[in-house]
Amino acid sequence: MSIKITGTGSFIPERIERNSDFNEHEFLNLDGTGFNQPNAVIIEKFKAITGIAERRYIEDELFNSDIAFFAAERAIADAGIDPEELDYLIVAHNYGDVAHNHMQSDTVPSIATRVKQKLKIKNPKCVAYDMLFGCPGWVESVIQANAFIKAGIAKKCLVIGSETLSRVIDKHDRDSMIYSDGAGATVIEASDEEGGILAHESATYALDEGTFIYFGKSNNPTISEERRYIKMHGRKIYEFALSNVPEAMKTCLEKSGTDIADVKKILIHQANEKMDEAILKRFYKLFGLSVPQGIMPMSIDKLGNSSVATVPTLLDLILKGNMENQELKKGDTIILASVGAGMNINSIVYKL
Amino acid sequence: MSIKITGTGSFIPERIERNSDFNEHEFLNLDGTGFNQPNAVIIEKFKAITGIAERRYIEDELFNSDIAFFAAERAIADAGIDPEELDYLIVAHNYGDVAHNHMQSDTVPSIATRVKQKLKIKNPKCVAYDMLFGCPGWVESVIQANAFIKAGIAKKCLVIGSETLSRVIDKHDRDSMIYSDGAGATVIEASDEEGGILAHESATYALDEGTFIYFGKSNNPTISEERRYIKMHGRKIYEFALSNVPEAMKTCLEKSGTDIADVKKILIHQANEKMDEAILKRFYKLFGLSVPQGIMPMSIDKLGNSSVATVPTLLDLILKGNMENQELKKGDTIILASVGAGMNINSIVYKL
Repeated sequence: MSIKITGTGSFIPERIERNSDFNEHEFLNLDGTGFNQPNAVIIEKFKAITGIAERRYIEDELFNSDIAFFAAERAIADAGIDPEELDYLIVAHNYGDVAHNHMQSDTVPSIATRVKQKLKIKNPKCVAYDMLFGCPGWVESVIQANAFIKAGIAKKCLVIGSETLSRVIDKHDRDSMIYSDGAGATVIEASDEEGGILAHESATYALDEGTFIYFGKSNNPTISEERRYIKMHGRKIYEFALSNVPEAMKTCLEKSGTDIADVKKILIHQANEKMDEAILKRFYKLFGLSVPQGIMPMSIDKLGNSSVATVPTLLDLILKGNMENQELKKGDTIILASVGAGMNINSIVYKL
Repeated sequence: MSIKITGTGSFIPERIERNSDFNEHEFLNLDGTGFNQPNAVIIEKFKAITGIAERRYIEDELFNSDIAFFAAERAIADAGIDPEELDYLIVAHNYGDVAHNHMQSDTVPSIATRVKQKLKIKNPKCVAYDMLFGCPGWVESVIQANAFIKAGIAKKCLVIGSETLSRVIDKHDRDSMIYSDGAGATVIEASDEEGGILAHESATYALDEGTFIYFGKSNNPTISEERRYIKMHGRKIYEFALSNVPEAMKTCLEKSGTDIADVKKILIHQANEKMDEAILKRFYKLFGLSVPQGIMPMSIDKLGNSSVATVPTLLDLILKGNMENQELKKGDTIILASVGAGMNINSIVYKL
């Protein structure tokens, strides 16, 4: 028996927020001081490091659970399954449903319940739960679905990564330009075909790294309200990721018994272009190799960092032929990898 | 191989909120209208139905992740394990960390990461994540730990249920008297002993039932703020639970191959005393039996409904000899069962 991805779907919001839309923002340091640079320079530097030119925000009237549902519908249609056959419906996210211009996260009932309701699934044996694991939540939920199938308690699982970071950003923080909204979904099934999930690897670094990504006050100290926003220590994350992600990917690849030369694509969490490139470079260096041309498809320039949604969205875009010069075919081996709040790291080696 | 609970711990906040502390509250219906009864009568009726005389609230300076940690420490000490050996650290909750007098849920990093940090666990292979599944979250997380062990990806898991409902209650809602704070934790391990988790059963009823428990505005329409609170449709929940929980428990018991006569205790989510009694009555009726004396230990009178924390707390109290006239000994078979937001239902048959 193998465990395979039999369908993918994604939802990319239509609303484009360009870098130029940040021209008038008052950016401040964490300590509330200003930058001695015009916004044009700040934005140019930001673009050079992260690779982000634009990002997507959902429409004001939508919720995270809505876009999770849109992606789910597409993945189910793509897999050609009857949703009533699903044993699990897992939604990875971080902030639940946050209404436009509101600050509360709504997680009761779970986002998974909301998606199940929207999908009109009646079968009570389809167990719907939410999983919080930072940006690596979708990859980790696939690992959980894999475990449920291996343990004999599931055959078909719907695994969604969905996030609306536009609802939790501090406009006085330069990092607010990183975040985006999106949803990706996959159907995971027990299969008689060869391949599927060959190996996986997960880790949580909490002791010193637990608060590298956190919920904090606005960088603008004149805002007295208690509202908190997504915050990150970018430099620390960069160093942490470089020290730990390549090794985790290597361990996972070795567990899978796959030769590095047989890896066709590496789909990495779209966190920051320079960081992702540095991770790949160090990963290949562990094998004494340089990075093969085109092995790492990137969507961050147009789609930004939508947390749990980046990897399943990227996979869906490639499989549906919607990424220029990128394709995957049956029998190809790929690596999925992510790093984020926790700090959590994970990786899957997957053969199509 | 069996999968056993090798240690338990709980944290019961010291601060007692008595029914009399609600005497001066202005209770209103969902539609904002008043009750044509003095509070004394409302509270007396509430006590007669729910069995709740008092509940526990955490101190103002504490967070949900603090009490999750307190319970975790005790479970680890009880199991006598080195926490560095843990493969998973799972925290079931619903609202994350909500600071006193604040309305935002803080879930980044996950509560599991915070607990792992407080426990000073260095081992990155101890994967820490949060699970949202309404009140049945702790039982469901035990089912997940069970799956990870069966799938061969874990040997030792720490499973915590922790919630601070005092931070999300509407004081104009009579139901606010139900909610309480608490944390319960268990260590789940692969074992060579007989017994352990014999069977489990889970369900999510989302289509019509998804919003029986929800996040809604205050019952006081003169409060213009957008803040939302935990809300429930009590009558619908009562009918739903009675229609579905006994059957789920019966299915689970049959799967386990256990005779109803061999069930020593039933530890049910402390939601509402009359509802729990009605569930038990109907469960035994399915076997043509009446409810055996003392089979259902209850803590709700003193501890209220602390969501995910009630079942592991009850188990810990009994195992530590802290429940009058209640004991469990090696070889005893028990049923754990819960129902709550989702609407989710689950059950485990467990042999000590």
